[in-house]
Amino acid sequence: MSTIITLTTDFGLGSPYVGEMKGAILSINADATIIDLSHDIPPQNIRAGALALAQATRQFPPGSIHVAVVDPGVGTDRAILYAEIAQRHYIGPDNGLLSRLARAETPSKIRAIRNPEYWREEVSTTFHGRDIMAPVAAHVGLGVAPESLGPEVQQIVELEWEEATKVAGKIEGKVESVDSFGNLITNITTEQLADVPRDESVETDCDGHQTQGIFATYDEQPPMTLVAVIGSSGALELAIVGDSAKIMLGADVGAPVTVSW
Amino acid sequence: MSTIITLTTDFGLGSPYVGEMKGAILSINADATIIDLSHDIPPQNIRAGALALAQATRQFPPGSIHVAVVDPGVGTDRAILYAEIAQRHYIGPDNGLLSRLARAETPSKIRAIRNPEYWREEVSTTFHGRDIMAPVAAHVGLGVAPESLGPEVQQIVELEWEEATKVAGKIEGKVESVDSFGNLITNITTEQLADVPRDESVETDCDGHQTQGIFATYDEQPPMTLVAVIGSSGALELAIVGDSAKIMLGADVGAPVTVSW
Amino acid sequence: MSTIITLTTDFGLGSPYVGEMKGAILSINADATIIDLSHDIPPQNIRAGALALAQATRQFPPGSIHVAVVDPGVGTDRAILYAEIAQRHYIGPDNGLLSRLARAETPSKIRAIRNPEYWREEVSTTFHGRDIMAPVAAHVGLGVAPESLGPEVQQIVELEWEEATKVAGKIEGKVESVDSFGNLITNITTEQLADVPRDESVETDCDGHQTQGIFATYDEQPPMTLVAVIGSSGALELAIVGDSAKIMLGADVGAPVTVSW
Repeated sequence: MSTIITLTTDFGLGSPYVGEMKGAILSINADATIIDLSHDIPPQNIRAGALALAQATRQFPPGSIHVAVVDPGVGTDRAILYAEIAQRHYIGPDNGLLSRLARAETPSKIRAIRNPEYWREEVSTTFHGRDIMAPVAAHVGLGVAPESLGPEVQQIVELEWEEATKVAGKIEGKVESVDSFGNLITNITTEQLADVPRDESVETDCDGHQTQGIFATYDEQPPMTLVAVIGSSGALELAIVGDSAKIMLGADVGAPVTVSW
Repeated sequence: MSTIITLTTDFGLGSPYVGEMKGAILSINADATIIDLSHDIPPQNIRAGALALAQATRQFPPGSIHVAVVDPGVGTDRAILYAEIAQRHYIGPDNGLLSRLARAETPSKIRAIRNPEYWREEVSTTFHGRDIMAPVAAHVGLGVAPESLGPEVQQIVELEWEEATKVAGKIEGKVESVDSFGNLITNITTEQLADVPRDESVETDCDGHQTQGIFATYDEQPPMTLVAVIGSSGALELAIVGDSAKIMLGADVGAPVTVSW
Repeated sequence: MSTIITLTTDFGLGSPYVGEMKGAILSINADATIIDLSHDIPPQNIRAGALALAQATRQFPPGSIHVAVVDPGVGTDRAILYAEIAQRHYIGPDNGLLSRLARAETPSKIRAIRNPEYWREEVSTTFHGRDIMAPVAAHVGLGVAPESLGPEVQQIVELEWEEATKVAGKIEGKVESVDSFGNLITNITTEQLADVPRDESVETDCDGHQTQGIFATYDEQPPMTLVAVIGSSGALELAIVGDSAKIMLGADVGAPVTVSW
């Protein structure tokens, strides 16, 4: 059984950077199973990368290794981290990219990657994904102990992950991400919605657009209708049946969402 | 030799859904070889998904497993199918996505996937690709018998796949798909063209644009010329040498194509 | 340890061509590890493909196999090559696609692929990537000797790769490629810059836009500043901190770049 190493980057698909990272991994650990998660994180958008990384990697088995590179500060004194979260191994810059994962479960064995023994011999100042993170992931897959990567770290850089607030008869949140279908995914959780009615007595407002009821599927209402749905990531989503809510509503990340009943 | 599991979806490349499916597979079957076919099927376009699935998977070896997720009806009572077609295993929603394959070869061992034993423990209403199809594919790769997935099904949902018509001196068809080069791929087959002359006495008309002759390669005419070519999928294609016929002709799926001689 | 076979094409992501090539490989060599480098080379842009191939594959281990398909002349009498370069195996059309690699290291064991024994039984005129190159790569991975692929070739097709020129106090070059961040990557090498000052006494001009100093990282100057940086590929890059230099400067491949001190 070979080691699983996943890649999440903002490199886009037309550039050779992704290939360079894969080559760097396979040069050290030829048996690694490399899995592309996404290379289409918006350039330098650490929040979007942190959300995608948290959502995609939680499905992976214990022992899997996840490399994330959204790294506008490459070459500066920002640290590069190794962290164990929910029995998985994460490697990425210490700029908040791991902080969404860390909100759900406290990381263990956090290390600052400083030991060049496991790096590319020649390290550039602008591509630590290829020269440090990929080689370290390959070595961790071969059994290198986290302790040998560098000194222990107590605290990772955190981004602010705003939670929706709930008062009597009302939850106030916002759009946290938009998926490839144009569905607007909010920070209102299924836990917060547990005692909220699902029928027409509940109204969801997104940036001035209203819809009644909370549904289980996208397809329970007629085409082109705005629906509120419990999404697969455990959060309330706003969708237009058969179309893009992002485009039809002109709403994006940050748009206010209120559920009232 | 590990099991091959391919993925064809309309998830796009910026979202974590593809990664979630890969994690779901590898959590059950860590030795599976996961192969991306396309995640760029136009959103909810079942016809485009059916065409891509049929074209890409027919090159795969017997025993390979192919998961297809273009699933606007997720969470409704549409069935999820397991089918064997040409000795390959297919898993996808019963919405026509398998019907292009089924046109070429009758599926055997069709089953409605209903046995939750092989699903994710917690099944969402909006992401059966991750919660049902990926886990079932992983289990089939481990040797689970199709019979244990659910009851037999006699008939899958069919889409209409219009065939080109041939009369004396004329074939009437249409553009069925457009590839990434902007080549217009028609539903006029090499079989239909077998006794048609290839020289200048044959004229192909696409939406009012004419070209003489049928060629073997894109490069036999000068740049920017419209040419009719026998494509790699066994169908007549219209191409602009060195450019996009889709853009230059303003033609798309459904445009009428006539070959006359 | 399975054989690594990488793919670099201009097929885009929405088409089934990439999947067809993967199926063709796995039908012959089911244990191959297939690695996507890029399928987003601009259509029929041989230069861009040659640059991406050279940059991405030099990180791969000896013995890895690299298939490149940017092939506007498919079906004509252009040859298909097998070449060994830096202990790696390359397969692609003889149209210049291998010439960037060949500039850095002279290919050995160049063969014209002519022996149909290792091809798909039925060979189309428009898709040699699937019908010739993928099967040959699969067979080479199984140990087929290069000598059996076809006759020896002395000379591959070369593209012109212009070098920057250096005179007293001045280097004149140009933008050679643009990456996914919009960074402009020049043909001015670190070797040429070895004795050039890095401080404010050096000025770089790109198409009329000037910047002082040469930096080690993108992040040493304020956001929205134009900076000259030594990039990870060993060439001078022009970047806008936190944004796209391509868009902000309106500059692209071919734009003149001058370093003076």
